[in-house]
Amino acid sequence: MDMLMIQLEKDSATPLYEQLYEEIKKGIIEGTIAVQTKLPSKRKLSEFLSISQTTVELAYAQLIAEGYITSKSRVGFFVEAIEELAYVEKTTSQQMIKTTKKHKILIDFNPGKIDTSSFPFTTWRKYAKDAIDDHKQDLLLIGSPQGEQELREQIASYLYQSRGVLCSPEQIVIGSGTEQLLPMIMKLLGEDNLYAIENPGYALTHHIFSQYNQSVIPIDVDEDGMQIQQLEGSSAKVAYVTPSHQFPTGAVLSASRRAQLLNWAAQEEERYIIEDDYDSEFRYIGKPIASLQGMDHRGKVIYISTFSKSLMPSLRIAYFVLPEKLLTRYHDIFTYYTSTVPRFEQHMLTQFMKDGYFSKHLNRMRKIYRKKLEKLTQALDPYAPTVSISGEQAGMHVVLTVRKEMSATDLSNIALQQGIRIIPIKEYMIAPTAQNREDQFLLGFGGIEEAEITNTIQKLMDCWRIRRTAD
Amino acid sequence: MDMLMIQLEKDSATPLYEQLYEEIKKGIIEGTIAVQTKLPSKRKLSEFLSISQTTVELAYAQLIAEGYITSKSRVGFFVEAIEELAYVEKTTSQQMIKTTKKHKILIDFNPGKIDTSSFPFTTWRKYAKDAIDDHKQDLLLIGSPQGEQELREQIASYLYQSRGVLCSPEQIVIGSGTEQLLPMIMKLLGEDNLYAIENPGYALTHHIFSQYNQSVIPIDVDEDGMQIQQLEGSSAKVAYVTPSHQFPTGAVLSASRRAQLLNWAAQEEERYIIEDDYDSEFRYIGKPIASLQGMDHRGKVIYISTFSKSLMPSLRIAYFVLPEKLLTRYHDIFTYYTSTVPRFEQHMLTQFMKDGYFSKHLNRMRKIYRKKLEKLTQALDPYAPTVSISGEQAGMHVVLTVRKEMSATDLSNIALQQGIRIIPIKEYMIAPTAQNREDQFLLGFGGIEEAEITNTIQKLMDCWRIRRTAD
Repeated sequence: MDMLMIQLEKDSATPLYEQLYEEIKKGIIEGTIAVQTKLPSKRKLSEFLSISQTTVELAYAQLIAEGYITSKSRVGFFVEAIEELAYVEKTTSQQMIKTTKKHKILIDFNPGKIDTSSFPFTTWRKYAKDAIDDHKQDLLLIGSPQGEQELREQIASYLYQSRGVLCSPEQIVIGSGTEQLLPMIMKLLGEDNLYAIENPGYALTHHIFSQYNQSVIPIDVDEDGMQIQQLEGSSAKVAYVTPSHQFPTGAVLSASRRAQLLNWAAQEEERYIIEDDYDSEFRYIGKPIASLQGMDHRGKVIYISTFSKSLMPSLRIAYFVLPEKLLTRYHDIFTYYTSTVPRFEQHMLTQFMKDGYFSKHLNRMRKIYRKKLEKLTQALDPYAPTVSISGEQAGMHVVLTVRKEMSATDLSNIALQQGIRIIPIKEYMIAPTAQNREDQFLLGFGGIEEAEITNTIQKLMDCWRIRRTAD
Repeated sequence: MDMLMIQLEKDSATPLYEQLYEEIKKGIIEGTIAVQTKLPSKRKLSEFLSISQTTVELAYAQLIAEGYITSKSRVGFFVEAIEELAYVEKTTSQQMIKTTKKHKILIDFNPGKIDTSSFPFTTWRKYAKDAIDDHKQDLLLIGSPQGEQELREQIASYLYQSRGVLCSPEQIVIGSGTEQLLPMIMKLLGEDNLYAIENPGYALTHHIFSQYNQSVIPIDVDEDGMQIQQLEGSSAKVAYVTPSHQFPTGAVLSASRRAQLLNWAAQEEERYIIEDDYDSEFRYIGKPIASLQGMDHRGKVIYISTFSKSLMPSLRIAYFVLPEKLLTRYHDIFTYYTSTVPRFEQHMLTQFMKDGYFSKHLNRMRKIYRKKLEKLTQALDPYAPTVSISGEQAGMHVVLTVRKEMSATDLSNIALQQGIRIIPIKEYMIAPTAQNREDQFLLGFGGIEEAEITNTIQKLMDCWRIRRTAD
């Protein structure tokens, strides 16, 4: 223990040494000073508290006498384990917070999981070593509020090459994630907007809109993505879409709807599109579809994406790309803003991208996820037509349709009792839709080992009592 | 270059190879495909775009013929430098954004700077190496929304020992900084609060309150900190204070005002105190003053602090400590929330604290800053009584009072012309105050090298034409 912050009252009737003794004793009993802790030396503590060394000596002597601490010659004073003492309950908060997890999750089809076994730890560690360097003292200080220039250059180049996004580094703003970036975009677009959101859609986004008191209007999603006709009939000002791989249905926004959506935005000055391109790095089928941003010539698209899926969720690096005409407004509003992303980390990622490791990693992961998807399709095949999948063009999740005389909620609960977490699509619905999604589930496969997939699916089918068609 | 995202129209009258050729040429001319870039192989690009290899071959041949790319046998196709070509201006945003910095800053008394020369890079690098480890794959996934349990334990123990803050790890929420944490606190305390803020005060805080449409009422600060009597006369519900070292005046909230403030909060159920303890690690004079949080027995204080001053501003780790009664509300509101702080970094800091390096670092830095402060005092001494300092009990800044027949704004401009940045206290004022602060400046000394201080002060005095008294 470096120091001991104790408040002593010099004018009190209780002698100083007794006050000190009482406070340390209290700390030991309540557990705030842990067993085995080395107390500060008498000299140090007396200096720190501006009291005489004798006062500390008296207090320590008393604590030794009563067995709270022991003195090891030439080493110092150490806190003893006091088992006989009545243990004072520290707080009840611990018990209060614990959520009642009844079922231990053994198999998790949660779409947020990625494959962690193929992460290039060695390379990443190397870049950490390079970034944390005595010659880079400047990196300790605050950097650009938009994120490091070098990293924005890498992102601009990556986005152009792989997603057809056209932008300069000046249009990019780096932040910690959607939770942090989306409110910034909302600020930019001004108060009292009506946001069109996909239904079903990403729960977090919906939550953020409501937390910031923004009105939303749910627009139905079918196999071609958001129904733009419905959007046109609404009074929405801003449309939030996931065109490359709709979350959660996996639909890809069709070419004609893309044009329709861009036209919708072009009709009114204040209309905008927020394009969330969260997992488009992993596309398995069909020719590449460029981002909406790349098709847009009127500065109507705010492009947002993240390294959560492509690198790791715990990295906390995401970004958005602003149309040029919003830049002045961005600089006006966010003058006082400091980037939320650590600079060392930004420099690690910059070098990782610059040296081509990011591309390599994506290629490797694309193969891994494609194999997993193939395994998944094979594993589910024998259960057709009771079970089928859709939305498998990209990403790390598909939609599972289960034709059973039982609701998805009931099936989900049955699975949970066996330790399997699989979430009904219904739970991502903001309002009822024309599409029947009663029998659909979101099945994330990113976090499940390839070798486990067949086994895992069999367990799921077994608990739902779905048999192979051939049986 | 890993891949080339190009949108081709199969039904167009223009042949595919020509479209491809045109698009790549455009990329090279506009600079989005950089000189020396290796283009994807013909096979890879044809697969990626779902076109025949012949199409790619034709396009590449045309580009070679026109000198846009060259083919290196068995290596690939590379983009050439095309200097003769008219360079198409990419965007105007770069020019647009550039702030007109007329004066190059040579000496910066900005209070946000720290001493970077003594940072333990080697140790920090070691912990990065330890954290980024194949055996810790789990750290790639999302962690606790409140921040890692182990780090919260370290912070709880540190806060108790050095600041007298009494809390369990469950009461701590870790985030990226004040910009990100303060809005969370505002959400917790509910809509339509009136916030009392210190005047003069921290500009960022004021900015955040206004961005989130929260009403504020400025309360005067004198040499004993916030004038609680003024607060009592207001209808404020929440008081935001920096009691250990008021920003920017450096005042320490007196013991009687602390009691008064806690009593004020106790009088009404919804009243709260936000205690911002941003730089209390560095105290040089007098006995330690425990945090308000430690004196509070009614759960009225929300304690907020950061590692920006104690470790580095670019780390982006800060935290707040909630009273127990606000925990349920916290968990209700922030269910969907993901921590903004990278997990690797949290684990690095945990180990750094656990192994005692944080304490060591603080002790070392305290000595360094104390020496700098001594040097500063010595350097200013000869200019008394024209110049004097106050607020020097703690932290990395003091208040400089300059008795000259000239406004602080004019003096600040004169300094700026010599490349010296020093900000008048006036600029931190939200409203006029009873205190005369016309002749005061904020002088941050954290970022100035000890050996430079005397010289630096002399330059400042010279440009203001202030002479040594003895002269």
